[in-house]
Amino acid sequence: MTESPVHHEPPIYRRIADRLREQIRSGALGDGDRLPGENALMSEYGIARATARQALAVLINEGLAVPRRGSGVYVRLFRPIRRHGSRRLSREQWGQGQAIWDSDARGRAYTVDEVRIQRERAGEQAARALGAELVWVRRRRYLVDGRPVQLAASHFPADLVEGTPVVLADTGPGGVYARLGDLGLAPVRFTEEVRARMPVPVEADSLELPPGNPVISVSRIAYADGGAAVEFNEMVLDAAAYVLQYDFDA
Amino acid sequence: MTESPVHHEPPIYRRIADRLREQIRSGALGDGDRLPGENALMSEYGIARATARQALAVLINEGLAVPRRGSGVYVRLFRPIRRHGSRRLSREQWGQGQAIWDSDARGRAYTVDEVRIQRERAGEQAARALGAELVWVRRRRYLVDGRPVQLAASHFPADLVEGTPVVLADTGPGGVYARLGDLGLAPVRFTEEVRARMPVPVEADSLELPPGNPVISVSRIAYADGGAAVEFNEMVLDAAAYVLQYDFDA
Repeated sequence: MTESPVHHEPPIYRRIADRLREQIRSGALGDGDRLPGENALMSEYGIARATARQALAVLINEGLAVPRRGSGVYVRLFRPIRRHGSRRLSREQWGQGQAIWDSDARGRAYTVDEVRIQRERAGEQAARALGAELVWVRRRRYLVDGRPVQLAASHFPADLVEGTPVVLADTGPGGVYARLGDLGLAPVRFTEEVRARMPVPVEADSLELPPGNPVISVSRIAYADGGAAVEFNEMVLDAAAYVLQYDFDA
Repeated sequence: MTESPVHHEPPIYRRIADRLREQIRSGALGDGDRLPGENALMSEYGIARATARQALAVLINEGLAVPRRGSGVYVRLFRPIRRHGSRRLSREQWGQGQAIWDSDARGRAYTVDEVRIQRERAGEQAARALGAELVWVRRRRYLVDGRPVQLAASHFPADLVEGTPVVLADTGPGGVYARLGDLGLAPVRFTEEVRARMPVPVEADSLELPPGNPVISVSRIAYADGGAAVEFNEMVLDAAAYVLQYDFDA
């Protein structure tokens, strides 16, 4: 098959987007830098305003840039948080009094600025995961470097944790997993389901996401020795802020 | 703190979106069904066209619906493919002659409609992962039920696989992992990095993604006994088509 390169040349707005993306990836354009505006692109490439806008829209759509009304389009980068599936949850962490969310692998501290703890009727997924109709739920928002990065809703079967420190705001050294351990319900096995999607509006608001920024949804079930499900945790992560790492044997 | 519920009522377009989303989740509106049009929403709720459009945009943005030019907005669902991290890659699979991508957990067959195999200079990530300057790369597009769901680019150090069946189009029973095993390089350990982002244009084209549909990017390194990295695989998954499952011990 003979290919005519003329037919395969991508349209001009894509080639401009490719060039700008390369400048971001190479570090020539850094976090918070202003991208060339529509007028600058129009005169540099001799293109129409709509074409310049299309080129910038590609980068906004990829989450590499964010528009600020009346001001221009800016590079938006963030050192991603490396979230280790297995290592982060190992007993060594919470067994020694360190809450699993104290810090990420780069040593940046997580802070929690919203905690709501309440007893409620389990939603469909939590009920199925835990085999419980009534649950205690700990809802939190996590921040790193002052930026909201994660929403989490930990569900516990009410009959297991009623009247225990698991339902207190301050769960003490090692957090809820250590307290579950005190109850003879230490998690020994985890299952995580990972999905990605666009946020629903309340998530976009709470994580302060710019348009076109997807979320990673992680649903985790923690099992105690014997197989009882002791926690169902629904987490919503700003996709631009995370890398999830899983290590496993063949 | 006394809360006035009046101030917390979400705007009308969100409540309409919530109702439509609930109809999709409950199954009242199924895959391919047409959502109520702007005119229908305007007369049902007594709202302006812009408000009706906003309500529909919420569902499009979440990947639950897709607009068709001049025709309306349609529900877009797909039974997600459950991709098991550890189980899927276990030796039991490829050790017995079954390629790991033959089928998903629901028994649906993967098909491959594009395979490109070539020797090339390693990109930055592949070079770092494999410690190799020259690599053989197997690029494939996978489909399930006729729908493109994944792009994959498997990289192998050229000096390890040169002249072996790993670089052939048909790698035989058990696929490339079984062939690596024949060379004494069977993978014994894997590391996967999971990210989510909006697709770049060439990915959106190849996976036939509607606007607002994110991708999951999985970068996997396979290690042989002794610790040598034998494969670096970059996968791009249609986020609407996948659930990734990882099981691990505390």
